[in-house]
Amino acid sequence: MADPIAQLVNELCKLPGIGDKTAHRLTFHILKKPKEEIYKLISALNSVADNILKCEICCNLSSDSPCSLCTDNTRIADVLCVVESVSDLKAIERIHEFRGRYHILHGLLSPLDGVGPNDIHIKELLQRLAENHIKEVIIATNPTIEGEATAMYLSKLIRPLEIRVTRLATGLPVGGELDYLDQVTITRAFKERKDL
Amino acid sequence: MADPIAQLVNELCKLPGIGDKTAHRLTFHILKKPKEEIYKLISALNSVADNILKCEICCNLSSDSPCSLCTDNTRIADVLCVVESVSDLKAIERIHEFRGRYHILHGLLSPLDGVGPNDIHIKELLQRLAENHIKEVIIATNPTIEGEATAMYLSKLIRPLEIRVTRLATGLPVGGELDYLDQVTITRAFKERKDL
Repeated sequence: MADPIAQLVNELCKLPGIGDKTAHRLTFHILKKPKEEIYKLISALNSVADNILKCEICCNLSSDSPCSLCTDNTRIADVLCVVESVSDLKAIERIHEFRGRYHILHGLLSPLDGVGPNDIHIKELLQRLAENHIKEVIIATNPTIEGEATAMYLSKLIRPLEIRVTRLATGLPVGGELDYLDQVTITRAFKERKDL
Repeated sequence: MADPIAQLVNELCKLPGIGDKTAHRLTFHILKKPKEEIYKLISALNSVADNILKCEICCNLSSDSPCSLCTDNTRIADVLCVVESVSDLKAIERIHEFRGRYHILHGLLSPLDGVGPNDIHIKELLQRLAENHIKEVIIATNPTIEGEATAMYLSKLIRPLEIRVTRLATGLPVGGELDYLDQVTITRAFKERKDL
């Protein structure tokens, strides 16, 4: 195989969910395109590599720092939502419900993988809490082992600061069926049942 | 969303099998990588855009023209295998059985999509057959409607030149189960049954 082709297949294989076969399919698709189309993809990658930086306030990835969410004065400044990643932030923005600000950890505590408190943006969060008047911190990490552990760790750090710490509710997903849901979710839903 | 991010998502969405969600996932994965990793992908794309050309003999995509398959003197020069695409060529090369040369059509006849004989590399094939001594042309287009139609069309053009024209066998795939195979395949397998 011509070297440049093998090289591109190899680079594409490094992306998540893309194996050898998909990488070949993508490569041959790219080869079929007019050159200008390939250059568009290249310039998009270049502009992401060169222009995207972490917001100095919330650690969001953006072409500006502070990012547009941190400079938007219509957003409530004293409620912070802590998320694992930018994609989680986007998921929350899609519901158009939360009007506060964010803090992105860029990871979760995971001692087994060697990820400790200094490897994710906890220091920046605590500094933000110290320097600003924050009423509530909503911890919106995923309800996985690492997400729960991170939430526990954060709540222990934040509670002494006399800031309200909340966590997104766990329970039955809307539209879900008991029959298909896992035992842990149903157990949680029982434990956290509410009066009607 | 920051513009460069949206732009990259948009470009990735144009690739086959990549929707909005996968494009976002890939983008955020790329954003997490060190810059050098992104530049590696960019340089692979650049080298594909700048260095890959169609082999003047067989229309294979390669960084050289004629390509390595056409200049390899250990390959049989008078047997040509006609395939739709470079990925089909790779699939045949993987079996390590065929030692002849190739001709890549870069498409199949498809009147409904407006693809006629002049839109694929049939002219180049006929010219090759006229200028070289070719004993056999193996038509290895896929056994789909377009693949069959293209095979029929080519065989009508080539047979008058007194060149043997063959087609890959159709039938039950090895390891397949009758119960799960479609009716057309089983019908074909019956029609083309062989004496034992």
